[in-house]
Amino acid sequence: MEFICQREELVRGVATVERAVSTKENMPILEGIYVRAQGDRLHLVATDLEMSIECFVPARVQKEGTAVLSGKMLGQIVRKLAGEEVVYRTGENGVAEIASGRSRFTLHTMAGDEFPSLPEVDEDEMGRVSQGALRRMIRHTLFAAATDDSRPFLTGVFVELESDEIRLVATDSNRLAFHKGKLAQPLSQSRSAIVPVRTLAELMRILEAGEESDVEFIVSQSQAVFRTPNVQVISRVIDGQFPDYRRVFPKEQPTRVRLDRDEFLAAVERVSLVARRSTPVVRLAVAENILTLTSREAEVGQAYEELVVVKEGDDNETAYQSRYLTEALRAMDSDEVELGLGHGLRQGSIVPVGDSDYLYVVMPVRVG
Amino acid sequence: MEFICQREELVRGVATVERAVSTKENMPILEGIYVRAQGDRLHLVATDLEMSIECFVPARVQKEGTAVLSGKMLGQIVRKLAGEEVVYRTGENGVAEIASGRSRFTLHTMAGDEFPSLPEVDEDEMGRVSQGALRRMIRHTLFAAATDDSRPFLTGVFVELESDEIRLVATDSNRLAFHKGKLAQPLSQSRSAIVPVRTLAELMRILEAGEESDVEFIVSQSQAVFRTPNVQVISRVIDGQFPDYRRVFPKEQPTRVRLDRDEFLAAVERVSLVARRSTPVVRLAVAENILTLTSREAEVGQAYEELVVVKEGDDNETAYQSRYLTEALRAMDSDEVELGLGHGLRQGSIVPVGDSDYLYVVMPVRVG
Repeated sequence: MEFICQREELVRGVATVERAVSTKENMPILEGIYVRAQGDRLHLVATDLEMSIECFVPARVQKEGTAVLSGKMLGQIVRKLAGEEVVYRTGENGVAEIASGRSRFTLHTMAGDEFPSLPEVDEDEMGRVSQGALRRMIRHTLFAAATDDSRPFLTGVFVELESDEIRLVATDSNRLAFHKGKLAQPLSQSRSAIVPVRTLAELMRILEAGEESDVEFIVSQSQAVFRTPNVQVISRVIDGQFPDYRRVFPKEQPTRVRLDRDEFLAAVERVSLVARRSTPVVRLAVAENILTLTSREAEVGQAYEELVVVKEGDDNETAYQSRYLTEALRAMDSDEVELGLGHGLRQGSIVPVGDSDYLYVVMPVRVG
Repeated sequence: MEFICQREELVRGVATVERAVSTKENMPILEGIYVRAQGDRLHLVATDLEMSIECFVPARVQKEGTAVLSGKMLGQIVRKLAGEEVVYRTGENGVAEIASGRSRFTLHTMAGDEFPSLPEVDEDEMGRVSQGALRRMIRHTLFAAATDDSRPFLTGVFVELESDEIRLVATDSNRLAFHKGKLAQPLSQSRSAIVPVRTLAELMRILEAGEESDVEFIVSQSQAVFRTPNVQVISRVIDGQFPDYRRVFPKEQPTRVRLDRDEFLAAVERVSLVARRSTPVVRLAVAENILTLTSREAEVGQAYEELVVVKEGDDNETAYQSRYLTEALRAMDSDEVELGLGHGLRQGSIVPVGDSDYLYVVMPVRVG
């Protein structure tokens, strides 16, 4: 294998795939990045058998071939090189020679044909949305998934495709985030799967914010596939039945409060500084056009905040774990949000003003 | 106690002293910041009994007094407040009331007179240099001190005052950094002390780069004191005899190589990516006007770099631990450096071109 490519392109390619490189040490080949030089480009692949990421990098290929290079070394080296171009050739005994500027590296390689082949992709019917839209949907839901493994089916985001609608839902059973969007064209068949948080976190890194070009994808009971013009992510999906999330949507809310998202977030953050034990809780009380936020009386002291709001409905009081508010408010991007409060221990909700596709539901905590 | 002050000024003041707040939990009063409102300013003090930092913050004082507030809470709160001004008053039972904008906090306090009194400062004769100059001297030497505690007298920077000269020296016995400077006026008496790394790291944070105004200081066998117009740092010093560092200065060096600092640093960093075991070593070979840097043959591969240099004297070869080169090259700020190589295992040196006040000495390693 021999090729020349732009260093920056190679850096971008390696950065794209290296997050799928295995960190477990029991299969050395999975610690590598598979490189294939063919035609006018390189095909880079990394996989830990749960998730694979592939991408293409333009190159002037002088001699086609394949090799597997240490993902960690390749990443560190291409980032540090000073030259504009990187010149690669496989030398004696399969040693890789990488040169750029006045730098030269030799790296031991593994044979390309030892690298595991990737699962076949069922190409028949792919859904399509813009990269920016899917990225935003992931950002709005991902944080709400469970982080503990006691219920594996909650450690992913439920992706539901039905006709021309795509829905992402995540919950840890204390709060739930739901975002729906439109597909570029309807699918003939409904599909759904629970996609691991890690896959979507990597995908979010790859998708570009505000990018109008499409991402193609499909989910099934065996795999989830996401594809942009240059990158393909294939992931296992999580077994299990995702809960019937619509039952959690609040039906009627006696109190609706409209307020500035940044101000609300900052106030919750401040009140949360004063916490009893380690789990900050914020009490909310709406009276007329004032929302009061208070901490519980703690060893160190107490915090009070007032926000001027627009209220519809009854005065009301409730309390939430601070983290369930701050994480949602940080994920949103609207200037204003509408907070819906239920009676007693009924669920509350937060929606971005002007974006009816998104709903965040949160369960109150009982405070003594 | 009652006062009003600018939030930004209070944030700056708390940030200045909080690094001296004790992190040990056996004396709660030392986890606090002492606040005294008097005249037209606040006096903030924190100490862990090894180092104390004090500073002044302008304030409109309505009622003079003192209190000790949790350093951690105070820091977090003042940083998060949204108002321009902070209003403080001691309420019932010594509870502090802190208000800003529509935020209000109550914090339990401890009595000001329980806070330990700081050591007396021997005022008789203070040395003076510009803040920027002292900061640069610390930056040039601090990194070379020992980090393990086996020889405590090497875990600080030796500060030597003699007539109108100040010298800072640090060594871990594998390398040594020396920087001398001029005092604003001569001292009548020579003094020296070993000042802990932590004290100088905090002082470096406080001193402003390029700041022309002076820092006053004095060192003795019992304490080190540094004072800017608004801040005073008092520290214990380290017992022990600092080694006779001048014996380490290289006497004659058969090879002198002049080269670009950034290029040299980048080349050493790249070569260090390929390391045998965990301690990267770089071999240097000068022949004519080419400096070749190579890694030792390692499991993963090998690295080669070439730099065009200006050489005086003999061709030469040596090897250093990479870290001993990179740390020094990063601390320096000159465009070019001069590398001096000795014969065999004699010490090498790096000096910034155009700055004869600084000398860095490094011992080679034997490579097989």
